[in-house]
Amino acid sequence: MGHNAIIGQSGGPTSVINSSLAGVFSVCRRRGVRQVYGMRFGVQGLLKEQLVDLSALLSSPLSIELLQRTPASYLGSCRYKLPDYRQDASVYEALFALLNRLDIGYFFYIGGNDSMDTILKLSEYAAAVGSDIRFVGVPKTIDNDLMITDHTPGYGSAAKYIGVTTKEIVRDATIYDMKSVTILEIMGRNAGWLTAAAALAQDEDCEGASMICLPEIAFDPERFLAQVERAQRVSPSLVVAVSEGVRAADGHYICELADDALSVDPFGHKYLSGTARYLCGLIGRRLGSKTRAVELSTLQRCAAHTASRTDVEEAYQCGGAAATAALDGQTGMMVALRRLSDDPYLCVTELHDIHEVANLEKTVPLEWIDAENARMKEDFLAYARPLILSEVTPMYVRGLPRHLRLER
Amino acid sequence: MGHNAIIGQSGGPTSVINSSLAGVFSVCRRRGVRQVYGMRFGVQGLLKEQLVDLSALLSSPLSIELLQRTPASYLGSCRYKLPDYRQDASVYEALFALLNRLDIGYFFYIGGNDSMDTILKLSEYAAAVGSDIRFVGVPKTIDNDLMITDHTPGYGSAAKYIGVTTKEIVRDATIYDMKSVTILEIMGRNAGWLTAAAALAQDEDCEGASMICLPEIAFDPERFLAQVERAQRVSPSLVVAVSEGVRAADGHYICELADDALSVDPFGHKYLSGTARYLCGLIGRRLGSKTRAVELSTLQRCAAHTASRTDVEEAYQCGGAAATAALDGQTGMMVALRRLSDDPYLCVTELHDIHEVANLEKTVPLEWIDAENARMKEDFLAYARPLILSEVTPMYVRGLPRHLRLER
Repeated sequence: MGHNAIIGQSGGPTSVINSSLAGVFSVCRRRGVRQVYGMRFGVQGLLKEQLVDLSALLSSPLSIELLQRTPASYLGSCRYKLPDYRQDASVYEALFALLNRLDIGYFFYIGGNDSMDTILKLSEYAAAVGSDIRFVGVPKTIDNDLMITDHTPGYGSAAKYIGVTTKEIVRDATIYDMKSVTILEIMGRNAGWLTAAAALAQDEDCEGASMICLPEIAFDPERFLAQVERAQRVSPSLVVAVSEGVRAADGHYICELADDALSVDPFGHKYLSGTARYLCGLIGRRLGSKTRAVELSTLQRCAAHTASRTDVEEAYQCGGAAATAALDGQTGMMVALRRLSDDPYLCVTELHDIHEVANLEKTVPLEWIDAENARMKEDFLAYARPLILSEVTPMYVRGLPRHLRLER
Repeated sequence: MGHNAIIGQSGGPTSVINSSLAGVFSVCRRRGVRQVYGMRFGVQGLLKEQLVDLSALLSSPLSIELLQRTPASYLGSCRYKLPDYRQDASVYEALFALLNRLDIGYFFYIGGNDSMDTILKLSEYAAAVGSDIRFVGVPKTIDNDLMITDHTPGYGSAAKYIGVTTKEIVRDATIYDMKSVTILEIMGRNAGWLTAAAALAQDEDCEGASMICLPEIAFDPERFLAQVERAQRVSPSLVVAVSEGVRAADGHYICELADDALSVDPFGHKYLSGTARYLCGLIGRRLGSKTRAVELSTLQRCAAHTASRTDVEEAYQCGGAAATAALDGQTGMMVALRRLSDDPYLCVTELHDIHEVANLEKTVPLEWIDAENARMKEDFLAYARPLILSEVTPMYVRGLPRHLRLER
C-alpha cells in the first residue's frame, strides 16, 4: 500500500480547523509517514493537482504553534459534492490515479456534513475497486450540527466568541437611561447551537441576553413584541439574540420579510441576512423603542484571537486520532468526541462508521429550550460551559495576532 | 472651597473610558479627596440627583483592575448639550446648587466633543458667578477626531480591534479559489481614523485590505469598480475597508443610495448604515463577483477583550492628570496627549484650555492618504502602530472576561 498521506480542508472555515490539520500532520510525522501532502482548495484543488508539501511547510515547532492560532483553512477550501460513483466514476478514476501516483496510503478530510459525504463516497469507491487507501474524516463546523459526536470542533470557539461579544454588547447597549432594543443576529440556519451560546453571557456580572430565539422554535412576531414590551418594563435596554434562521410557523424565514432578504455568499450560496434589521424595524414601528441591529457575521467563525483552548486542543486531538486510526488500518471512519462528564469535564475521541454521520443534522433538543420565556435551560448551559473554557494566547507581533499563511 | 469630587462619563462608549474613570478616582483618593461621587448617566442623571458613592464601590484594588477591563461607561452615559447660560441659566443654577450641597470642589467629565463643550460652559458659568469649583475634561472617543491631542484615548483599542478583525476576515475571505469581494464597513462619519486602521493588518503574514476608502476623499463609484476589477486580476478574493461616512463628490452619503439607508441609534440619532451592502450590490451587478458585507458595528467601541494596553494605560494617565490638575488649582482645562517620538514610542499628558478643543473636529491629513491607490501611507502607519501595542489580559471566569457592573 501507499506510503504517503494527504490532508484536505473543506466547507466553511472555523477558528480551529487548522488545529485539526496540525494534529493529523503531527501524528503522521511521528508515526513515520514519509511525505505529507496538503490539497489546496480541498478535493476541487486536488483534481487540478494543486498540492503543497506540508512536511516542508510545517517543519518547525513554531509553524505548528502558529498554525493552531490561524483561523480559516490554511490549505484553502471548497464546497464540492462528489457524484455517485455508480452513475459517474470518471472523477473517482482521476482522483485514484493521482493518489496512486503520489503513493498515497492515507487520505484525511477535515470538514462538516458535505466533507463526511466525500469520505463516505471515496471509501465506498475504494472498497468497490479494491484500493487499500484509507479514508478518515475529521469533524469540523461552528454549527455543531453533526450527528454522533457530542460536539464538533469549531463550535466551542464560536460559542466563546458569541459569549464574549454578547457580554461586551450588553455593557455597551445599557449605558443610556432610555428604552432600547439591540438585536444580535447569529449564524445557524436550522440548528440554534450558536444562538443558544448567547445564554453563556448571563452571570453575576452581566444581565445577559433578555431573549434568545432559536430556529428550532416557530417564531411568532406578535408574541415576540409582547415579550419585548414585558421585558422592557423590568429593564429598559434589552439585548436580544436571534438566529438568522428563525422561521414563522408556516416555515417562511423571518428575514424574507426584510426588503433585501436573501444575500449571496462568496460561494454563490444564498445566505440569510436581515432578520435583525427586520425585527428592529418592527419594534420601532410597533413599540416606538430605539433599536440597533448587530450582525455577528463571519467573525463568529474566524475570531481565533478569542478561541477556546478546550476547542483548539480537541481539534488537535481529533486530527491526531484520525491519523492514528488510518495508520492502524481503519477506513471509512469519522472521529467523534464522547463526553464522559460535565464537571470535571472529561471527553475522549472515538471512531464511528462514516455512514452513521454523513448527511444528517443535529438540532438543539427542544427540552433544553424554554420557549415561553425565550431562554436556554440549565441543561444547555451545563453542556456548553466546558466547551468555552480557557484561552490560547495569540502570538502578538506589532500589536496584532501572528498567523501562518500559505502563499497563493 | 468644596472638599469632594464628582466624575461623569458622557457620549458614546469606548473600551477604555472606564480606565480614565479609574485614573481620576485613584488620584483623587491618593490626594486625600474626602468623597468621590459618580454621576449616573452624565449631567442628565446629575440633574435628577442620580449619584453613586465611588469611594465605596471602588474600594478594592480588584475592583479597579476589573473596571479597567470593563467596556462602555460604568456610570452610564448621556448625550446632553447645555444651553447657553446667558440665555437660560436655570439649569446652571440647579446644577451649582446641587454641587454646592454635595460640597463639590472638583468636577470631571470624560467624553468627546460634546462633553468638552459641557466643561467649557460650566467653567465659564463658574467664572461668571464666582464659584471656585474646578472643571476639567478627560478626552475620550474612538473616532480620534478631537483637536490638540495627538490622539484620543479609546482610539487605540478600536484601531487594534479593527486590525485584529481585518486580519482574521482576510484569512476567512480568501479560502476559496474564486473571485469575491468582502466589504468591511467601519465607523467614522467625517473622520476616517478608524477605517484607516484597517491598514494595520497588512504585514508579512497578511495581504491586508486591498483598498481603504475614507470619508476625507470623495467617493466615485465608477473609479471604485475599476479599482476592484484591477485588484481582482492580481488576487481574486479581496477585502475592502470602507468608512460608513463615504460621500460622493456632491456630498451625498453613499449609504443614502441603499434602500434602508439611515437608521436610528438608541439615542434617536440617525446613524449611517448600509454602505457596504450597497457597494456589494453594485459589485455583484456590475462585475458579477460574489460579495459579502460585514458591518463591524458597535464591537469597534466595546471589544475590551482585545483592548490595547497602550490605550488602557494612557486613558488611566489622562484621568490621573485631570485629577492632578484640578487638585493643583486648574479649571476650564482638558488633558491632552503629546507625542515625543514614534519609535521608541514616548507620549506625555499636558493641559490645554478647553476653548482650544471644544466643538472642533480633526480629520485624517490628506497627505497621509494615497487616494489613487486607496491605501494609507507610511506616515499614518508610523502614527498608528504604537497606539495598538501590547495587550491587557482579561480576567476570565468560566471562559468569559469578567466585568465590573453597577446595579441599576
